[in-house]
Amino acid sequence: MKINQFYVDDVIKRAINEDINYIDVSSALVIDEQQMSTAVLLSKADGILCGLDVALRVFTLLDEDFKSKIYKNDGDQLKKGDIIAELTGHTTALLGGERTALNLLQHMSGIATATAKAVSLCAGSKACIADTRKTLPGLRALQKYAVMVGGGKNHRFNLSDAAMLKDNHIDAAGSITNAITRLREKAGHMLKIEVETRNLDEVKEALQVGADVIMLDNMSVADMEKAVQMADGKAVFEASGNITDETIAAVAKTGVDIISIGALTHSVKAFDISMKIK
Amino acid sequence: MKINQFYVDDVIKRAINEDINYIDVSSALVIDEQQMSTAVLLSKADGILCGLDVALRVFTLLDEDFKSKIYKNDGDQLKKGDIIAELTGHTTALLGGERTALNLLQHMSGIATATAKAVSLCAGSKACIADTRKTLPGLRALQKYAVMVGGGKNHRFNLSDAAMLKDNHIDAAGSITNAITRLREKAGHMLKIEVETRNLDEVKEALQVGADVIMLDNMSVADMEKAVQMADGKAVFEASGNITDETIAAVAKTGVDIISIGALTHSVKAFDISMKIK
Amino acid sequence: MKINQFYVDDVIKRAINEDINYIDVSSALVIDEQQMSTAVLLSKADGILCGLDVALRVFTLLDEDFKSKIYKNDGDQLKKGDIIAELTGHTTALLGGERTALNLLQHMSGIATATAKAVSLCAGSKACIADTRKTLPGLRALQKYAVMVGGGKNHRFNLSDAAMLKDNHIDAAGSITNAITRLREKAGHMLKIEVETRNLDEVKEALQVGADVIMLDNMSVADMEKAVQMADGKAVFEASGNITDETIAAVAKTGVDIISIGALTHSVKAFDISMKIK
Amino acid sequence: MKINQFYVDDVIKRAINEDINYIDVSSALVIDEQQMSTAVLLSKADGILCGLDVALRVFTLLDEDFKSKIYKNDGDQLKKGDIIAELTGHTTALLGGERTALNLLQHMSGIATATAKAVSLCAGSKACIADTRKTLPGLRALQKYAVMVGGGKNHRFNLSDAAMLKDNHIDAAGSITNAITRLREKAGHMLKIEVETRNLDEVKEALQVGADVIMLDNMSVADMEKAVQMADGKAVFEASGNITDETIAAVAKTGVDIISIGALTHSVKAFDISMKIK
Amino acid sequence: MKINQFYVDDVIKRAINEDINYIDVSSALVIDEQQMSTAVLLSKADGILCGLDVALRVFTLLDEDFKSKIYKNDGDQLKKGDIIAELTGHTTALLGGERTALNLLQHMSGIATATAKAVSLCAGSKACIADTRKTLPGLRALQKYAVMVGGGKNHRFNLSDAAMLKDNHIDAAGSITNAITRLREKAGHMLKIEVETRNLDEVKEALQVGADVIMLDNMSVADMEKAVQMADGKAVFEASGNITDETIAAVAKTGVDIISIGALTHSVKAFDISMKIK
Amino acid sequence: MKINQFYVDDVIKRAINEDINYIDVSSALVIDEQQMSTAVLLSKADGILCGLDVALRVFTLLDEDFKSKIYKNDGDQLKKGDIIAELTGHTTALLGGERTALNLLQHMSGIATATAKAVSLCAGSKACIADTRKTLPGLRALQKYAVMVGGGKNHRFNLSDAAMLKDNHIDAAGSITNAITRLREKAGHMLKIEVETRNLDEVKEALQVGADVIMLDNMSVADMEKAVQMADGKAVFEASGNITDETIAAVAKTGVDIISIGALTHSVKAFDISMKIK
Repeated sequence: MKINQFYVDDVIKRAINEDINYIDVSSALVIDEQQMSTAVLLSKADGILCGLDVALRVFTLLDEDFKSKIYKNDGDQLKKGDIIAELTGHTTALLGGERTALNLLQHMSGIATATAKAVSLCAGSKACIADTRKTLPGLRALQKYAVMVGGGKNHRFNLSDAAMLKDNHIDAAGSITNAITRLREKAGHMLKIEVETRNLDEVKEALQVGADVIMLDNMSVADMEKAVQMADGKAVFEASGNITDETIAAVAKTGVDIISIGALTHSVKAFDISMKIK
Repeated sequence: MKINQFYVDDVIKRAINEDINYIDVSSALVIDEQQMSTAVLLSKADGILCGLDVALRVFTLLDEDFKSKIYKNDGDQLKKGDIIAELTGHTTALLGGERTALNLLQHMSGIATATAKAVSLCAGSKACIADTRKTLPGLRALQKYAVMVGGGKNHRFNLSDAAMLKDNHIDAAGSITNAITRLREKAGHMLKIEVETRNLDEVKEALQVGADVIMLDNMSVADMEKAVQMADGKAVFEASGNITDETIAAVAKTGVDIISIGALTHSVKAFDISMKIK
Repeated sequence: MKINQFYVDDVIKRAINEDINYIDVSSALVIDEQQMSTAVLLSKADGILCGLDVALRVFTLLDEDFKSKIYKNDGDQLKKGDIIAELTGHTTALLGGERTALNLLQHMSGIATATAKAVSLCAGSKACIADTRKTLPGLRALQKYAVMVGGGKNHRFNLSDAAMLKDNHIDAAGSITNAITRLREKAGHMLKIEVETRNLDEVKEALQVGADVIMLDNMSVADMEKAVQMADGKAVFEASGNITDETIAAVAKTGVDIISIGALTHSVKAFDISMKIK
Repeated sequence: MKINQFYVDDVIKRAINEDINYIDVSSALVIDEQQMSTAVLLSKADGILCGLDVALRVFTLLDEDFKSKIYKNDGDQLKKGDIIAELTGHTTALLGGERTALNLLQHMSGIATATAKAVSLCAGSKACIADTRKTLPGLRALQKYAVMVGGGKNHRFNLSDAAMLKDNHIDAAGSITNAITRLREKAGHMLKIEVETRNLDEVKEALQVGADVIMLDNMSVADMEKAVQMADGKAVFEASGNITDETIAAVAKTGVDIISIGALTHSVKAFDISMKIK
Repeated sequence: MKINQFYVDDVIKRAINEDINYIDVSSALVIDEQQMSTAVLLSKADGILCGLDVALRVFTLLDEDFKSKIYKNDGDQLKKGDIIAELTGHTTALLGGERTALNLLQHMSGIATATAKAVSLCAGSKACIADTRKTLPGLRALQKYAVMVGGGKNHRFNLSDAAMLKDNHIDAAGSITNAITRLREKAGHMLKIEVETRNLDEVKEALQVGADVIMLDNMSVADMEKAVQMADGKAVFEASGNITDETIAAVAKTGVDIISIGALTHSVKAFDISMKIK
Repeated sequence: MKINQFYVDDVIKRAINEDINYIDVSSALVIDEQQMSTAVLLSKADGILCGLDVALRVFTLLDEDFKSKIYKNDGDQLKKGDIIAELTGHTTALLGGERTALNLLQHMSGIATATAKAVSLCAGSKACIADTRKTLPGLRALQKYAVMVGGGKNHRFNLSDAAMLKDNHIDAAGSITNAITRLREKAGHMLKIEVETRNLDEVKEALQVGADVIMLDNMSVADMEKAVQMADGKAVFEASGNITDETIAAVAKTGVDIISIGALTHSVKAFDISMKIK
């Protein structure tokens, strides 16, 4: 698994404790603990698969006799009706893990699918789609991974690993120039610095002081174009601010490098996958 | 706070560790640690507020000098432009907690708002809206609470606290009657038993054996009506299965008691709230 | 294992950290780490076995070469001298896990044995034995499971999964009727509602408002009989309040459905089992 | 609090998560969150109080407005009817913490009371009462503390902090002499070494090799007396093995220094304390 | 505190559980729990203070009556004999937290002091001192913060927040050019890419493909100079590989931008600070 | 593994979460997840190996296909160039675990090597080398184990498992005699009592009251000799206080039993070991 497995296992443990707590009373009192079954994971829509390793890990942790056959992998295009994988294990373990596995798989595939759509809307431009820190607490790694699987790129993972100077930082330092200068004095050489700009004057100042990345925050398409021209290739531009499926193509055409979309992770539509025990 | 505060604090701790990790490098290197600021939480859409206690708790845990003035409470109707609360604390703490607080508040308000809409679509019927176990791992309590705040009702919280007999349980036991009988022998007196039915024959058997709740799974509106008539008030019916804003009113009119909707918690649209530091 | 395995593993991890902490100094400095041994778990009294899976799990987690032969299962009647299981593994792992495994096994078997005795004292009546929330912190799932293995039934697991209206709730609402009405307005359809009553007037009111379960709290046997007659089969009654082995049969004869006994889990007598390394 | 507060807080957090989980549904839906109440902790039997700090800490953690007046302290003799403390806080917090606080307080007071009784049965001898590692997982510190409050002494806390050589260690080393010699070579100077003996020959060997403490395991009273005489004051003796209230005085008279009793912590009778909200 | 406070609190909790475990037996049995004392933190050497907030937090968490007067702050130069702070609290809390507080404070001040020395050895050059991932498990944030306080800069915090291509990555991709190209295709725009080079040919390739940072791994001073000249200001160079106080000045003079030193965090000499209770 | 494996696994999990966090971005985006490699652990200096089990456990937890061949064991003398072990597993797992494994292995081997040197400096005396509680938070068990592997002895592990009376305890009790008497009244029989002394009068008093161990704190070599003579073999003496490689032999010759050295664990020089993937 590409994602840190300790992170994934903690998510799963938390989910199972939340979903089973003491005992799966329906199964424990009705189904023989020794009974084995086989189930399939079935796609019920068209989109991009993401999270299969995570979903299978649920059952691996619950049942040491669990086995699977894999027909689709993360990043594969799914068609409605596709069988994703076949799962064999104790019936009580399959039932006990079903909801947790599906909740994760549907969420991650939903993100990958929405990201892939956004990426396709930028076709023909150099713009890449990126995520944000507008994620769901405790699930950020899974969500960011799903954006990557869907063809998007990951913005900074947390507040430690890159700097973003917003109006409060700029006000505290006096100007964009001061803020970046103060940061550079102490920041490490592996830290990229992005600065939020709201108008072309700020873009100009950010260009002069040499910000690694310049965010164009809620700017008009016209202003974005001007910003890009002003830079003449000497800066990376990120367009940001309530960009939707309707507006994305126009933004992409402005020549920005990155379009970041909070909705990819804060407003996820679950992708429909079911698990059928034979 | 109505929700178990230890649960909430764990969610927040997890979120902050994920979002800050080592240090908020932008603030730590640019803003004076002693500087205090005041910010407002601002509604940018119409809907139902939910999660304010949780959002404020973020700052209380990060800053012992944090104070707030509250203008709106959980369950209140929000209009675009409403000020929800005013927050005062160290600037670095406000910036460090901002994303975590908003991620939680927007998610919970999004659920409450969607639930309230579903409830309003049932107006005039006796049907209640309920959630499901299709929740996001680690966030179930917050999500279920938001459904309640939005006027919905909580289905079982986990696999321990109520029984739901699905086809696998019924197959293992031989029949609905056998499965319920076997369960009742061992189950406690505080445990409600629901049984999934797929057609009117199953409904009939469930009625005869006296299930506490009968789920009508993906049935047609016509069949739901027949089921309700067949019961003549002697059972509680739950309609389930991809019920949308378009179909909900028709389902409600069939006379079912409960309409459960997975999308309330698995496909949440974040409600737009911003935090502005003055 | 019927109990949520993540819960069990956490109990074991906590116990081992408490019991070993840094190093089992006696074994580490005296016994060869490679040495293998075989041990038996031996019953030293008559009663009901409970917790074998949990006890074996201790050694499985400590020693990947651990193997066992099982002669008795949870729920089996034990006679003094019975061999319960044979354990083979590294001597240092067997010694390191011995106390944790026995502490759990003796506690759980003690509960199952006491429960079975209480159940037998109700023979000939329809009364079932149930546990309470008077459990030992961090061990509730193991204790509740042991009550079930002993033939008892589980009362609610926690404050979320069923409602119990006590005098404080009733005072706050104004009356039993008001309290139940207020609860029903917001409570989900899977939630049972029990109300505590102290006299026959309260029982009457609880019957009229249709409580799912009526607790007869510390009532006389005569009053319990009257309550049962008054209900004429239309309510479930739970007798509660310092019921002992001496009084249980009389209570059972009143016709109550449930006799709940806190001592099953708050005053446990360990069942004597020893582990002998050959 | 004498006990490590982080340990206590973890026990409480675990207990509340187990007892409340998502929401205290009865209180949350019926009682006004702002309502304050006062309650008393009331002794319903005669014995020794233990665990008051722990019980009060439950409410401190749940309610920042919680206040208490303390009338009895850990170690005080309680008479039936004594008021132990008066508690003031939010009604929902008092109800939410009641069961956890009482479960801990009753358990700890039960241990202290039983220990005090055992101590009193040794009156007139030099024998002290000690606990064992036969404790309940996750509660050892609370249990050992209660033994101390009851007038008993703490045996080793875990396998790291003192050595105990049993038959397996002795067999592995070849003899008591070899085992102790091997241990002393590597063990630190702060580590006491106890050796289990089953007969007077073993006692003799243990005396010769100079064990710090000699356990007389399941020996007859006559043999214990001979062992003590043989040592002539040059060793510390611990009597162990199913010593009951009936046999304890006779054992104490043999001149042993320590009588260790597993039942103090593995078979605890809860001490009856109730909490009444006014 | 600049460091994520949840991280710090976890370190402290872990340390106290390790150091106290059940009870501070010496204090608990000898010193009155109500007794208050005042202590001073005293520097016993010359160097840079680091970790004071962390050390004070130990006592804040252990004792709600704890108060302090601060005379020196993180980053201040300490002389032997300087009083750093005055602490007032319960004697048992001061004694219980002393070792944990000093262990952290001495470790962090040791790192800051060593870093400041390394920085001073580069005086007159543009070279900055940086840390590495050669840190002590569970303490990385404290260690990296101490490097920053000592005037050094932080290299990447973890494997997620910047890329470093080593020989294994280069071999897998076929060449430095291929590896960087493959990375850039999928990596986010906030991610800096460093590549390890072992000779001037590799430096040349890294320059051509435009790596953000080029590590000169265990190169001779002469080769480092040539690399810097070759780049003509178009790359950031990091010198790495067993650089000691003896060799650091010569390396700095080569014109490299960064000198990273594992020993700053993997081979820390504790800075001598004592705590004296008056 | 001799150390409690749950403790070790927690250290590793913490380290990996700190070092990988979300994803090892360099490997994940460049190296094929299925690729297997073989690596060697290579000694780059002369000293004592310690921590191999811990280092290998890192890879076992990260990669279920991991295998190793072991050429050297904990406690073995290493020469520069020695191959310690050969590791085979997925390339991404080897790279992901490399830094964590080496950080632990180098730290533990550094401690064992320094301890062995101190032990050798006492050759010809009866003095043993011991550690202290001056350890690094969260790593104490690994550090104490390394001291033992290096031929040293472990002082008390924590504040619960042995008593140490310092000036504050003595002041609170009035005298050394009072403090020890008060402690003995309540302390268990397995608890050793050490008392800190600063001059020969205090040594005398400690001898008279029969302390188990007498610490000679920062005394001159002459006074230590006098103390030892005064005791005439009736006490165990521990020399303590900034003892260095230069002074240790002289201290050992005084006849003290134990020389405790904080620097063994608070000022560790990492032992140079590298991992080379073939």
